[in-house]
Amino acid sequence: MFRFFHAPLSPFCRKVRLVLSEKKIEFELIEEKYWEKREDFLTLNPFGQVPVLQNSEITLAESSAICEYLNEKFPDPKLLPNNIEDRAEMRRLVSWFDDKFNREVTQKLVYERITKKIIGEGYPEAKNVKLGMHNIKFHMDYMSSLLEYRQWLAGNEMTLADFAAAAHFSVLDYSRDVDWDRSNLVKDWYAKIKSRPAFRSLLADHLAGFPQPPHYADLDF
Amino acid sequence: MFRFFHAPLSPFCRKVRLVLSEKKIEFELIEEKYWEKREDFLTLNPFGQVPVLQNSEITLAESSAICEYLNEKFPDPKLLPNNIEDRAEMRRLVSWFDDKFNREVTQKLVYERITKKIIGEGYPEAKNVKLGMHNIKFHMDYMSSLLEYRQWLAGNEMTLADFAAAAHFSVLDYSRDVDWDRSNLVKDWYAKIKSRPAFRSLLADHLAGFPQPPHYADLDF
Repeated sequence: MFRFFHAPLSPFCRKVRLVLSEKKIEFELIEEKYWEKREDFLTLNPFGQVPVLQNSEITLAESSAICEYLNEKFPDPKLLPNNIEDRAEMRRLVSWFDDKFNREVTQKLVYERITKKIIGEGYPEAKNVKLGMHNIKFHMDYMSSLLEYRQWLAGNEMTLADFAAAAHFSVLDYSRDVDWDRSNLVKDWYAKIKSRPAFRSLLADHLAGFPQPPHYADLDF
Repeated sequence: MFRFFHAPLSPFCRKVRLVLSEKKIEFELIEEKYWEKREDFLTLNPFGQVPVLQNSEITLAESSAICEYLNEKFPDPKLLPNNIEDRAEMRRLVSWFDDKFNREVTQKLVYERITKKIIGEGYPEAKNVKLGMHNIKFHMDYMSSLLEYRQWLAGNEMTLADFAAAAHFSVLDYSRDVDWDRSNLVKDWYAKIKSRPAFRSLLADHLAGFPQPPHYADLDF
């Protein structure tokens, strides 16, 4: 069985948890306080980051590498489009959420408001929070423009791009940073992915000191 | 024929140029001053970043998505290992260079010393440069530990991981930030990849105001 080392509010860990659950792969969830740089954990991953997925045969790090591995090793259900061009569009969006969106939005809101306190780095910087709140609007509008002519973010099938994006939105929803009234298309897309069984474990996460907002686990938010 | 929009010192663009050349794919190289946010370029890529690869059928953005696309569409020579586990290791290293190494080293040295001046953002911050010079040592030691028991970074075949890493080292070599005496293994690895025909176009790059260091294009550096 796999052991999955994670942090509850990491969007990268959440993306992998969604993929594992969607593929019905059994795993043991282990919370890793990565900022404490535990020696045994550094042996697993010299860079000290979560997520790490491990079994008796292999140790995997970096969320994109893990997701591609899971898709190749456990192809059912497949979370990649069938054709090469659509896969490129999907990977563009995965990079976009995990790189650009993460930097411009998730880091500026969830990291500032919650993670900093957990890892002992102090209080949120107002300047960053303000920027994050500004940036998320632009990103939601862009998603909305995609969803106008697609059922899912990368096309008409649910793919890794949806899991990457939903992982970010789930932590932003926890920190109460999503204005769901901004776009019905984005809200409907999130409601659709949130109601999947794979999402249940994310909705059950409770962080000491940071209560879930009332709508967080509600499928009719 | 493909049109490739790039910036000469972007390691992400250089990685794609290496893959295109290694696969002998013809392309027209177009220098894009992405910071000027040219309207036609924003239509191609709403996020305004290079690299962008385009032909009459498709427009591709994000360097990892482009490289995976090129590997799927033009499988010869393949730049991916044969087995799933080795591919995961390769993708871990690609993410590592393009994410961690980029943040800790390339951004702190090449961006500070050269890019900032080109895009009109002023002078290098001494604090960042110092950090970058400190971090590159740790990263070279890690590469050295991999190369002790592997011919290439991800195993015994040359893969995308080598191109990702070499792209970063080529721009750091341009900014004179690599101490090649630190590791013979890293130096030999770089000499091996630098001597490939695919590398020639990178070695011919000249930036106005930033002359090439004497050893930059020398295959026996």
